[in-house]
Amino acid sequence: MSIQNFKLTIEYDGTGYHGWQRQKNHASIQQEIEKSLAAMVKTPVTLIGSGRTDAGVHALGQTANFQCHTTIPAEAFRNGLNSLLPDDIVIRECVEVDPSFHARYDVVSKRYHYRILNRKIPSPIHRRYTWHVRHPLNRETMRLAARHLMGTHDFKAFEAAGSPRSHSVRRILHADFVEEKPDLLVFEIEGDGFLRYMVRNIVSTLVNVGLEKITPDDFRQILLSRDRTQAGATAPPNGLFLMSVKY
Amino acid sequence: MSIQNFKLTIEYDGTGYHGWQRQKNHASIQQEIEKSLAAMVKTPVTLIGSGRTDAGVHALGQTANFQCHTTIPAEAFRNGLNSLLPDDIVIRECVEVDPSFHARYDVVSKRYHYRILNRKIPSPIHRRYTWHVRHPLNRETMRLAARHLMGTHDFKAFEAAGSPRSHSVRRILHADFVEEKPDLLVFEIEGDGFLRYMVRNIVSTLVNVGLEKITPDDFRQILLSRDRTQAGATAPPNGLFLMSVKY
Repeated sequence: MSIQNFKLTIEYDGTGYHGWQRQKNHASIQQEIEKSLAAMVKTPVTLIGSGRTDAGVHALGQTANFQCHTTIPAEAFRNGLNSLLPDDIVIRECVEVDPSFHARYDVVSKRYHYRILNRKIPSPIHRRYTWHVRHPLNRETMRLAARHLMGTHDFKAFEAAGSPRSHSVRRILHADFVEEKPDLLVFEIEGDGFLRYMVRNIVSTLVNVGLEKITPDDFRQILLSRDRTQAGATAPPNGLFLMSVKY
Repeated sequence: MSIQNFKLTIEYDGTGYHGWQRQKNHASIQQEIEKSLAAMVKTPVTLIGSGRTDAGVHALGQTANFQCHTTIPAEAFRNGLNSLLPDDIVIRECVEVDPSFHARYDVVSKRYHYRILNRKIPSPIHRRYTWHVRHPLNRETMRLAARHLMGTHDFKAFEAAGSPRSHSVRRILHADFVEEKPDLLVFEIEGDGFLRYMVRNIVSTLVNVGLEKITPDDFRQILLSRDRTQAGATAPPNGLFLMSVKY
């Protein structure tokens, strides 16, 4: 009997977790799903995510795969997992895929949303899912600055300080703002890969543009500088959503 | 020095509270705000709400008033309260009003939203703020049924069982569905007053129409019957939002 390979599409509210990756002594999304999978197939299962999400970051379309010998059909995995998992993690889809499919290596692009609540007063309802910026943002200059992200660049200026990664060139396919409601600004970015904290560092620097602390051209200079100290502080995790992963 | 009267507009996430009204041994919105007000003016303050919201119900525009002798300006009340209150309660506005203003007696109408997530899979992000209905809803028949609510009716069929209220005639000014997203259905209702559980009982009965268990005409018959046992079970509180109160 040859091994089977399943692909999961996962939504989660990251508020209560120390991120995607399994850790000692801390709740993680990966661990919760692995625990529920093991309960279903009666043997330990390793779940391979498309990549990590950091503590407090949410997902509407995280993807992962796992291999096992089983007679359980894909849809029954989805339903079974959803009945076992806590209600802040939901499996949207489970499909059987080619044995060669690898959720991390095969990624073509990822799309993120970052949600900003831009009004004077904080919001009880949106607090877990937005960054609250109380001073008015100039959306036009933010849009202009965001255009500089398009294409292939060395994103070292927006990488987490002290990251050991040697290669920081990434290709951005799309970067723009979508207005959901008058006071809700959503930044959408799609790229072939992202460095640690990259989206959150880009967003905080774009917010500095919106606050008119820096110009769209300053933003471009920061990108070109490849110098982390030039960019803004890391924006909070709770505004960030991994929306989808393309293969 | 004559007494001053202040009107508050309040947003809250009702998840963690046993409703608006002050209770022994249970957290309530009214009590949290009264506690913060007392800390500001150094004397007990009674807050008069536009009406109760039940346990788990949210508000984007609850209103209330309180009277006191103070030199604190209205805007400083708002900012001070927001710094003292937990982050699931936010004062959106504080204005000084005529001494005769009464947040409950002077209500002209109230507007509610009830949010339904209509898709197969539950949602980690929307779970606190929607009722998850997994079977597809026929929105056209729900709209037709909702029209029967318009105007002045005796809403006894939709009142909480065993309510002691003698008078159950209310006037509905507006009742319709708004689609926010493909899988998110929002019921909007505005009326001169609402009986206990009235919106939630109406919504569950409308959902029975959407599930094609009953027809729009059955819905009308239930309304006319004035018989609580004819209507659906009470819909969960977490989909309900008090949006605004008119004076």
